[in-house]
Amino acid sequence: MQGPSPQPETRIVIHGVGLIGGSIAAAARQRIPGCRIIGIGRSRTRLQAAQAAGLLDEWSTRFETAHAGESGLVVICLPVDKIADAVLETAAVAADQVLITDAGSVKMCICERVAGDAAAARLFVGSHPIAGSERGGFEHAEAELFAGRPCIVTDTVAAADRIDRTVRFWSALGCQVTRMSAARHDRILARTSHLPHVLAAVAAACVDQDQLPFTGTGFRDTTRVAMGSSSLWSRILSCNRTEMLAALQQSEQQLRQLRAALETHDTESLEAILEAAAQRRHQLDAGS
Amino acid sequence: MQGPSPQPETRIVIHGVGLIGGSIAAAARQRIPGCRIIGIGRSRTRLQAAQAAGLLDEWSTRFETAHAGESGLVVICLPVDKIADAVLETAAVAADQVLITDAGSVKMCICERVAGDAAAARLFVGSHPIAGSERGGFEHAEAELFAGRPCIVTDTVAAADRIDRTVRFWSALGCQVTRMSAARHDRILARTSHLPHVLAAVAAACVDQDQLPFTGTGFRDTTRVAMGSSSLWSRILSCNRTEMLAALQQSEQQLRQLRAALETHDTESLEAILEAAAQRRHQLDAGS
Repeated sequence: MQGPSPQPETRIVIHGVGLIGGSIAAAARQRIPGCRIIGIGRSRTRLQAAQAAGLLDEWSTRFETAHAGESGLVVICLPVDKIADAVLETAAVAADQVLITDAGSVKMCICERVAGDAAAARLFVGSHPIAGSERGGFEHAEAELFAGRPCIVTDTVAAADRIDRTVRFWSALGCQVTRMSAARHDRILARTSHLPHVLAAVAAACVDQDQLPFTGTGFRDTTRVAMGSSSLWSRILSCNRTEMLAALQQSEQQLRQLRAALETHDTESLEAILEAAAQRRHQLDAGS
Repeated sequence: MQGPSPQPETRIVIHGVGLIGGSIAAAARQRIPGCRIIGIGRSRTRLQAAQAAGLLDEWSTRFETAHAGESGLVVICLPVDKIADAVLETAAVAADQVLITDAGSVKMCICERVAGDAAAARLFVGSHPIAGSERGGFEHAEAELFAGRPCIVTDTVAAADRIDRTVRFWSALGCQVTRMSAARHDRILARTSHLPHVLAAVAAACVDQDQLPFTGTGFRDTTRVAMGSSSLWSRILSCNRTEMLAALQQSEQQLRQLRAALETHDTESLEAILEAAAQRRHQLDAGS
């Protein structure tokens, strides 16, 4: 078995040409000159439109061996609950040197399923570029969506050179890549992305329609992500169930503490809780 | 008693020259030509700097009758727990035609206290321009901070022409003014501003420092307001205690429902909860 080429990718198959898949195509166009981009999807109309927009060189409604050639890269950009199936189906017909990765927001549920399939386990390395938008569809694709954004590549049973190739790919798109276990990924993302989404949704849901005119820019920013697809997000939360349950309990405990401080007129504790949160958020700006 | 002048304000006293007070000064400079702006504050150095920045024509560390003249406007821009005292102190020495208003984020605690003082009750009309920033200090003042933003003027025992004058003032600064009771204001703002602030703080607090590198733009926006002053915000929450306790319980119930759906693998309910929140937030964009 020959090692993966240190050269840039030459064939990139994107399975699922939505916001993320479309942005990968747009970024690859700019940053990996000469690579051929093949889109796989369900809707001919949508795939034709993505090709007309210049994102794809060719497309198909079904992945075939020839799409990835001898050593192409396949990136699965489907909703999290559909990724493992697509990896298995792709691995079943892909050539030996093909690399399969994904862009899913949850990793354990995918990696565990893939680990149970020998062919898939050999070809697959899990990825999660932490970039996105509340808007869906390739029409909102941006070539710079990944520039400077973190991307997590998970440690798997795949050979080290395959993991290295995955890291090089996301780095080429502009990501800052970090490697870690799928379990650690899911624990972190439950707090940095999935819980914030839920809290934004709760903030939006607690406002009545006739109260909306009396919102400010703070409400607008705090709840923006809540406009994300409820279908995609319910699947993300479900796939990251264990860590989400822990994160939700943590947030409920925080709310109870804050409420207790308010109930008992304990302004000092109230301020301390808010100050700890402000400090944590300031650390993010200081570190960026 | 002569009616208030329909002419623009000619003397504006701003008690508390921070972000809001400074922005009122900057906006009045641009939108109420020829008006004289007097700043009242604690720190000579800060007041001198605000004058040097062109925000103030004169300043003092103590309000005196002459500052507001016969019929000036006094806007109290102090932290919410300091507003009622300042209104009472101002009313005690102000001329008959002076109008006193404020920019506080909570209204009941202020209006009730003012209502108990005959002189203050006659001169005061409560206001809340719903505009701000997580940054404090007049250095961040913006003349356009109020442009197109909602402002609530509360119904009080003051004469109708005094309320009209208050409405005209905020309209002149660019606000969309709505009149309502202080009780309704506090009920609404608990949901549109105070609860979102708390949920943003909880989202920030649930992330460990070593997890911060793995946040995206969603986390950044969702938690931005949590950087606001914990001292000012703990006082806002305390002043709006009753409505905040109700809003907090509402949010905890939402979280429990969502957690129960996740625990019982009820993906349909999970998606329905997220979809209701997404729809509510979409209504805001549709209405703007």
